[in-house]
Amino acid sequence: MAKPRKHPRPKAQTPKGFRDYFGAEVTQRTEMLHQIAGVYHRYGFDALESSAVETVEALGKFLPDVDRPNEGVFAWQENDADWLALRYDLTAPLARVYAQHRNDLPTPYRRYAMGPVWRNEKPGPGRFRQFYQCDADTVGTASMAADAEICAMLSDTLEAVGIARGDYVIRINNRKVLNGVMEVAGILDPADPEKFAHERGIVLRAIDKLDRLGPDGVRALLGQGRTDESGDITQGAGLAGTQAETIMGFMDARRETGQATVERLSELVQGSSVGEQGVAELEQIADLLAAQGYGPDRIIIDPSVVRGLGYYTGPVYEAELTFDIFDDKGRKRQFGSVAGGGRYDDLVKRFTGQEVPATGISIGVDRLLAALREKGRVKAVEHGPVVITVMDRDRMADYQQMVAELRNAGIRAEVYLGNPKNFGNQLKYADRRNSPVAIIEGGEEKQRGVVQVKDLILGAQIAENATLQEWKDRPSQVEINRGDLVATVREMLANHGIGQD
Amino acid sequence: MAKPRKHPRPKAQTPKGFRDYFGAEVTQRTEMLHQIAGVYHRYGFDALESSAVETVEALGKFLPDVDRPNEGVFAWQENDADWLALRYDLTAPLARVYAQHRNDLPTPYRRYAMGPVWRNEKPGPGRFRQFYQCDADTVGTASMAADAEICAMLSDTLEAVGIARGDYVIRINNRKVLNGVMEVAGILDPADPEKFAHERGIVLRAIDKLDRLGPDGVRALLGQGRTDESGDITQGAGLAGTQAETIMGFMDARRETGQATVERLSELVQGSSVGEQGVAELEQIADLLAAQGYGPDRIIIDPSVVRGLGYYTGPVYEAELTFDIFDDKGRKRQFGSVAGGGRYDDLVKRFTGQEVPATGISIGVDRLLAALREKGRVKAVEHGPVVITVMDRDRMADYQQMVAELRNAGIRAEVYLGNPKNFGNQLKYADRRNSPVAIIEGGEEKQRGVVQVKDLILGAQIAENATLQEWKDRPSQVEINRGDLVATVREMLANHGIGQD
Repeated sequence: MAKPRKHPRPKAQTPKGFRDYFGAEVTQRTEMLHQIAGVYHRYGFDALESSAVETVEALGKFLPDVDRPNEGVFAWQENDADWLALRYDLTAPLARVYAQHRNDLPTPYRRYAMGPVWRNEKPGPGRFRQFYQCDADTVGTASMAADAEICAMLSDTLEAVGIARGDYVIRINNRKVLNGVMEVAGILDPADPEKFAHERGIVLRAIDKLDRLGPDGVRALLGQGRTDESGDITQGAGLAGTQAETIMGFMDARRETGQATVERLSELVQGSSVGEQGVAELEQIADLLAAQGYGPDRIIIDPSVVRGLGYYTGPVYEAELTFDIFDDKGRKRQFGSVAGGGRYDDLVKRFTGQEVPATGISIGVDRLLAALREKGRVKAVEHGPVVITVMDRDRMADYQQMVAELRNAGIRAEVYLGNPKNFGNQLKYADRRNSPVAIIEGGEEKQRGVVQVKDLILGAQIAENATLQEWKDRPSQVEINRGDLVATVREMLANHGIGQD
Repeated sequence: MAKPRKHPRPKAQTPKGFRDYFGAEVTQRTEMLHQIAGVYHRYGFDALESSAVETVEALGKFLPDVDRPNEGVFAWQENDADWLALRYDLTAPLARVYAQHRNDLPTPYRRYAMGPVWRNEKPGPGRFRQFYQCDADTVGTASMAADAEICAMLSDTLEAVGIARGDYVIRINNRKVLNGVMEVAGILDPADPEKFAHERGIVLRAIDKLDRLGPDGVRALLGQGRTDESGDITQGAGLAGTQAETIMGFMDARRETGQATVERLSELVQGSSVGEQGVAELEQIADLLAAQGYGPDRIIIDPSVVRGLGYYTGPVYEAELTFDIFDDKGRKRQFGSVAGGGRYDDLVKRFTGQEVPATGISIGVDRLLAALREKGRVKAVEHGPVVITVMDRDRMADYQQMVAELRNAGIRAEVYLGNPKNFGNQLKYADRRNSPVAIIEGGEEKQRGVVQVKDLILGAQIAENATLQEWKDRPSQVEINRGDLVATVREMLANHGIGQD
């Protein structure tokens, strides 16, 4: 950009990758977050709202690139001193908060947080650089009961906001089990964690492609590699046949019940101590969930959950919506993941040197809200206010009195405050606001002590498809005594199922 | 700051001037904003959440200083292109939003917005660089009915959140009336607005000091100036006696009723067309408010309201809490202003060239919340969850079952997830969480099918001040059948007035 000179007219635009949210977009999200907070609160989690601005040093992730600290985050330097940045998630700030306030916080510390986070990434269609997250974490306990609790809470949360049981599933896996399988397959040496890192990377990516390539494609990637339809060659991990079959067996380890899956995994990791520990952890979680009545209709152990494993140190979980939707091209697909998380035990150590175990989830607020809209679980249409039209601009006080009566009765209402000269514009305005009712009181009505009440919803229905007889039988406009205003409007709104505040 | 080298341990601290909010601090604010949004919604205002990040050019205020655009705001340059910044209020973004989306928005556009804003200012005690605002504005109408509506809504809002009638007053003034008085006093020439600007500045500051200096002090400042107790000399505006008396008469123009005040102001501005227009506007607002029943017990016309006048083009309003509080030094003082606003008609013009009239208010969220706490109108204490203690760590599933029962009954509850070895630590934890009830089930209880339920609130009361007899009569711990867990806990909570979710 050329620097602006001498007050040119500024462009009225959000920066690239940012957007505004209007009306129901805001209130639906607020309502959903309110419902989520209710569940979190019932589980004993406390609210936390940390500062949106952190020092780059506290955010941590970007430290290696000190000369260009704003890679990935929005950052600026303060008076040649600290670099500050907008938080990119709610987990890094939790680590800072816990380290800073740990002497004043209970242990374990259960906290939830909701709010915007910012990513300095290239914006794309539907990808924004500011979006909401909604997290719950338990800091300071290594107990698997904390992980089980988070999964149960996630299940309750999804149902509380309107995702029916059966329309979602929470999958649990464990990073340690995968490590155990790698060890058994001979591509992880606990004594030398760096060894075979390249091969493990290929294996992880291959597992992640199971859906798309099928078992044979994955098997090829575990072995010598694979040539796709275009002729491109993807290098394989170079595993021998028995090694590859161990990995394939892992992906295929899911059984009818959690208990059977755990038993199968137990066989696969035999001899690997980390693997056995991982299986034991999964078993504990499954037992704890069963005790609370969370069966496989809600939460399952699924060894094929790989996504994000690299970040975590133990159990990982993911909530997936299982109903079908149709994409832009009319193709049926599953809605997919709306929340994910896991155990990450190195959270606070960077600050204090002490290891502090922690586990938690993050809900993708915008995706979950999109799912609820898809399922019709949020009000698709938000009704506007009752509009009192202005027939005589010198009698504004009369109209204000009407609106005060309606508002005091809890009815959303307003006086038209634009230029009243053209009455048609007033009705157009009411239409644009999606108003259910309009009130009309001209000078002649005023003299007779009456007002006209126009049912705009009924009027629209009649205009759309009523016969002449229906039109006569169901007048959409009624004349009433001025004193009956509140009662008449209330009844008209109730007829359309519109509640009061 | 020296650039961090080779991963030193980062400091766990918010940047200077930022802070975190915990538990009830967050939920009380959320609850208050929810109540405010309810009133705004009932008045027909629509929610808007604009992007937190704007281009510096759109924010506007800082344009003259293009080489140092982060004066006053947190700003950064994006890849040698646009300068971006965090919004410093909710009004500048509204102007941008309205200019950008005006073809899709109704006219007039009533919108409310709530959220954090950021100021790059020197932090001080109690002064933070991130804080909440909560605004309501009507864009696109010059009608005084919009201003009257905002004042009525502000009154309803204060009462809705818990400020009793009589504990607040909304004062209205009009920038044009003051200009008219200045014109009559001969220090404003409508043909040459810049003339006497220096004198008018002194007059404005003098008016603002009426409370502190009294009429004689102000009179001195309007004339030759004033020497304070320390001997410091403040230069005066140099007005002649009759000029000064005109200004003094303005400050003193408030009468018993709005009508009488308007009449007095009318005399004072006689001959100034802008002044007469301002008085007529005040009169209209007063009439409209009277029609809705908002009398001088809630809203008054008060010519002494000066604060912020420079920013506005017409009516200005301010909500003040009138009850006394005691400051840090034990001195009685009034709580003061919690909201303010007015009409500013040049809002959108910068972007589009067209004049768009607008009026609105901003509520100081943190100050209002502080006032509610002061008056005991928010729950001072937030109760923690019921804590199920862990007597036998192998029976975690039993405890999880209990907690699931309680949560399903809508009771906030959790299992202790710290190290269960030391039972005393579990009770200390419950104490720190401010838990009302603790549940205990050891192996022996399990065998007998009973649990111990400990009323921690009653226990604390007894420990504090009960006689031995009371202690015997009101045992704070009861043994109950395992099957009666939910009913017993529910009753215990109800005894202490603790509701369920």
